[in-house]
Amino acid sequence: MNKADIAIIGSGPAGLSAAINAKIRNKSFLLFGSGNLSHKIEISPKIDNYPGFAQISGKALNEKYAEHIASMGISVMDERITGIYNMGKSFMLLAGGKDYEADAVIIATGSETTKTVSGEKELLGKGVSYCATCDGNLYKNKTIAVVCDNAEMEEEVEYLAGLAETVHYFPVFKSSLHTENILKYRTKLQSVNGESRVSGITLKNGEEISVDGVFFLKSSVSADILLNGLEINNGHIVVDRNMATNINGCFAAGDCTGTPYQIAKAAGEGNVALHSAVSYLAKRNACLL
Amino acid sequence: MNKADIAIIGSGPAGLSAAINAKIRNKSFLLFGSGNLSHKIEISPKIDNYPGFAQISGKALNEKYAEHIASMGISVMDERITGIYNMGKSFMLLAGGKDYEADAVIIATGSETTKTVSGEKELLGKGVSYCATCDGNLYKNKTIAVVCDNAEMEEEVEYLAGLAETVHYFPVFKSSLHTENILKYRTKLQSVNGESRVSGITLKNGEEISVDGVFFLKSSVSADILLNGLEINNGHIVVDRNMATNINGCFAAGDCTGTPYQIAKAAGEGNVALHSAVSYLAKRNACLL
Repeated sequence: MNKADIAIIGSGPAGLSAAINAKIRNKSFLLFGSGNLSHKIEISPKIDNYPGFAQISGKALNEKYAEHIASMGISVMDERITGIYNMGKSFMLLAGGKDYEADAVIIATGSETTKTVSGEKELLGKGVSYCATCDGNLYKNKTIAVVCDNAEMEEEVEYLAGLAETVHYFPVFKSSLHTENILKYRTKLQSVNGESRVSGITLKNGEEISVDGVFFLKSSVSADILLNGLEINNGHIVVDRNMATNINGCFAAGDCTGTPYQIAKAAGEGNVALHSAVSYLAKRNACLL
Repeated sequence: MNKADIAIIGSGPAGLSAAINAKIRNKSFLLFGSGNLSHKIEISPKIDNYPGFAQISGKALNEKYAEHIASMGISVMDERITGIYNMGKSFMLLAGGKDYEADAVIIATGSETTKTVSGEKELLGKGVSYCATCDGNLYKNKTIAVVCDNAEMEEEVEYLAGLAETVHYFPVFKSSLHTENILKYRTKLQSVNGESRVSGITLKNGEEISVDGVFFLKSSVSADILLNGLEINNGHIVVDRNMATNINGCFAAGDCTGTPYQIAKAAGEGNVALHSAVSYLAKRNACLL
């Protein structure tokens, strides 16, 4: 299914709460996320304040979530959404080479682990890319830089290294990748440089390197880059009490909407966002008649 | 303990979520509610959409909540708060004949089951009362009307019947109270009448009865009556994204803040309200130095 009533981006407690309620409300939906559900929960040693579970480990809570959605026949599509396009009456979502369509979107991508660097947003599509599968071919035998924040995405780095001549590689974790044309750095990126197109990068240590393109392989893409025009304040998506964003048909829930970063808050907001999306669809469908 | 950092009113998922986080954050708190925790949850046959528990009965979920708070040494004070007074730097709370003090308040009283009737608010303290223990003595050998929305509170009706000459009784459930001076009605109250004091009541069927006072024995008192000046919209307490109300130091969470009436929403809002109360107390204490 490539078209649904609602696309839910994120498989943490906010996304799952939205999906559970979408199922109950008989809406078709696409749930994008990770087979692990929430990595952040998975690695939490102990969770004390999700009401109903005293002193549960993150791993055990994630298992409870997995059982809950499995019991309702809900599955997570292991796809990373790299772009959402507002088409007025619906949204198009890009994941690797594939595209999906939904009438409403709920963004539940969690708090950002990687901030954007200077030039990243400005040069997006002009040498900056978030998707190895989509844009790798443009850099055959060229020199690229790759920033990666998730060890599970190193396959994509290898894929890029198979195409490019040289890869300047900036993992934010301890990487064990070893390929002749991959040059690993421990320092971070300071900026992406270029006027109309990427021409190079500057590192935190001041070093400058000429590159043809820069790939940012992130677990979650910054929300305002994900969906152009989305109102952001202090790194968080601005929502009202109904979890509606400034874009009609687009809702948000969980850590991406702001502090406190709490599982109960995320689950509650996912529930509210779904109910708001259902109301939105009812109104929208009445108007389209 | 009659004085605490935070008073939490309500023992449903919102109140419990606030209490659990208050405990974790080492704040002293008073949790007012019912030994049953949430009656509304207790009588739900099946709950599908509280993430982590697939198809749990309300009774079983309530037990999970009870186990959770017990494991943290949290107990519920079985008291019904009938009035909150804003004293500027703190709040005074009345429960029956007792009073309590707290620097911040979280209202988590659920959705209202009983609406106010015409004249009820206007004549509060002028013959209208919410508290049998407090005001019963004023009606010795007099004629009163009693509206009661909760069978567990019928003890208070009996207490009043022991004092008053005649009790015109309006239970909103099937009552088995039988006392000579209690006249039971199946119809509802239309209005409480009187200029400067209660003089009588009018029933939905048009009948008029002279009474000296009217007691409303409700599981939860309407929020704007509970705390004078609290901003209400459409029967719900107006809150911002931090669960702050229009009154400094007063927060609200759960069904009392609006739809959707959902357990996950309530638990999330209770968490947020507590975190906001903690921030408020930190700022307040810094200013009081």
